[in-house]
Amino acid sequence: MALPEKASPSFLHLILERRSVRRFTQRAVSGKLLKTIVKAGQRAPTSCGIQFYSFIEVSDRRKRRLINNLVSENQVLESAPVWVFVCCDVARSLKMFETLKIDCYLGEVTRLVHSLIDASLAAQNMVMAAESLGLGSVITIYHWKVLREVSELLHLPRNVLPLLLLCIGYPAEKPPLRPRWSTYMVLHKNRYRLPDQKTMLRNYGESNRSLVNMNYFKGDATSLAEHWQRKFLTKEMILREKKLRTELRKLGFLPKKM
Amino acid sequence: MALPEKASPSFLHLILERRSVRRFTQRAVSGKLLKTIVKAGQRAPTSCGIQFYSFIEVSDRRKRRLINNLVSENQVLESAPVWVFVCCDVARSLKMFETLKIDCYLGEVTRLVHSLIDASLAAQNMVMAAESLGLGSVITIYHWKVLREVSELLHLPRNVLPLLLLCIGYPAEKPPLRPRWSTYMVLHKNRYRLPDQKTMLRNYGESNRSLVNMNYFKGDATSLAEHWQRKFLTKEMILREKKLRTELRKLGFLPKKM
Repeated sequence: MALPEKASPSFLHLILERRSVRRFTQRAVSGKLLKTIVKAGQRAPTSCGIQFYSFIEVSDRRKRRLINNLVSENQVLESAPVWVFVCCDVARSLKMFETLKIDCYLGEVTRLVHSLIDASLAAQNMVMAAESLGLGSVITIYHWKVLREVSELLHLPRNVLPLLLLCIGYPAEKPPLRPRWSTYMVLHKNRYRLPDQKTMLRNYGESNRSLVNMNYFKGDATSLAEHWQRKFLTKEMILREKKLRTELRKLGFLPKKM
Repeated sequence: MALPEKASPSFLHLILERRSVRRFTQRAVSGKLLKTIVKAGQRAPTSCGIQFYSFIEVSDRRKRRLINNLVSENQVLESAPVWVFVCCDVARSLKMFETLKIDCYLGEVTRLVHSLIDASLAAQNMVMAAESLGLGSVITIYHWKVLREVSELLHLPRNVLPLLLLCIGYPAEKPPLRPRWSTYMVLHKNRYRLPDQKTMLRNYGESNRSLVNMNYFKGDATSLAEHWQRKFLTKEMILREKKLRTELRKLGFLPKKM
C-alpha cells in the first residue's frame, strides 16, 4: 500500500493488528501510565468540548471481589490488574450548567445518545493508547447484568452510567486476529444496500471457519450461529431489554414514558 | 515519561496531539486509503464479532449538495473531500439471524446501546487511522437535525441509523489543541465524586481562557458558557429531544412506548 509522506505506518499497523487480551500477567500497571491512557481518552473528539464521560478506576480489592461475584466470577476480570469503568457522565455537565447559571437542557434520549458517543470514542482511544504502551486490554460489558448493584458500589449519582469496563494489563496471551466481514458487507457507496443471502452466508462461512480453526468456541457453542444464539436468545433478551430500560430510566437516560 | 520496552511513543503522540480538522485541501483521497480506514474501523472491539455498523461513503455531488442544503450550507462539509456516514446497523445482523434460522432477538434499547457503542468505537479507530495516514478528519452531527431526510437520501432501511458523518481529507489548517478538563475532574478512584463548584469553576475558567486565546469563539458566543447556552438552549433542546425520540422510534431504536 502506497502511504503518503507523513504517514505513520507503525500506528496503522498497531490498529490493524490489535486484538483483545483476556489474560494478563501479574505485573502492575503504574498510575502514571493509567493517567496517560486517560489523557489519551480525553483527546477523542467531543461535541463543544463537553466531555460527557468519567473514568472510575477500581483498585479496591473488596469492591472488585463484590463486582466479580455479581457477574459470576469472571476469569477475565479476575486476571486484569487494572479496571476502569468508562462511564457516560452527564451529571458533571448539568452541575456545570447550574454553576454557570446558563439556560441549558438535555432530554433523556439526548443524554443517552450524546454520552454514549463521547464515552465510546474516548474508550477506543484508551484501548489504542494502552496498545501503544505495550499493554493489552479488553472492553467488557458483563456488568450490564447488574447495572444497579455496580452503580451503587461505585456511588454513582443519577445521570452517570457505567457503560464499559475496560480491563488493562500486560498481556499473557497473544490471541489470533479475529475475523471481520469483508469490506463489501460494511462499506456502501451513496446508498445503503443490504447484502443478499448468498453474500451473507459466504461471509458467515468464512468467519465461522476461521473461528473454528482458532479454537474460538469453548463450552456449549460449536459455531458462530450457536454462539450468537446463546448470547442473544429471544427468551433472555426480552428480559434483558426490560431490565435495561428500567435501569436506564432510573439513571436518567430514558424518559419515564415516551 | 518512562515507556515500557515495546511502547510506540509515536502512536501515543499521534493520539495526544490529534485535533479535528475542519478545512481541507482539494487533494483527493484514494479509494484505497478509504478502504484501509474502514478496515481500521472494523478492528475496533465488537461484542461477539457482531459488527453493528455500516459505513456509507457519499461521493455523489447531487446527494452531497442536497444534504448540505438540508444542514444549512455547512462550510466544513463543503470543504471535505470524503464523507463517510458511520451508521448504527442492526438490520444486517437481524437478516443474518434470519438467514441462519437462529432464535435471536434484540429489543429496541438494546439495539440502540449496542450499536452506538460498536459504531463509535469503530469511528474513533477510523479517525486515528486517517491521522496515521497523514489525513485530517472531523466527526460531525449536523445531520441530526434532518435525520429522516438523510436516511431517505441514503436509502436506509429500518434498524440503520446514520450516527456520525466523518469528514476526511488532507488538512488545510492546523488548529491548536483544544483544552480538556484536568485529570482530577474525570478520573475517579473506587467511587464517583462530583467535583465541587470551586473545582468546576477553576476548570471552566482555564478552558475558557485557553479557548479565548485561540480565537475559538466566532459569531455570537464570547465564552464557553455562551457557546454551550447556544448549543443546548432549553427551548430548542426540548424540541430536539422530541424530534430525536420520534426519529429513533421510526428507525427501530426506541420502543413505541416504554
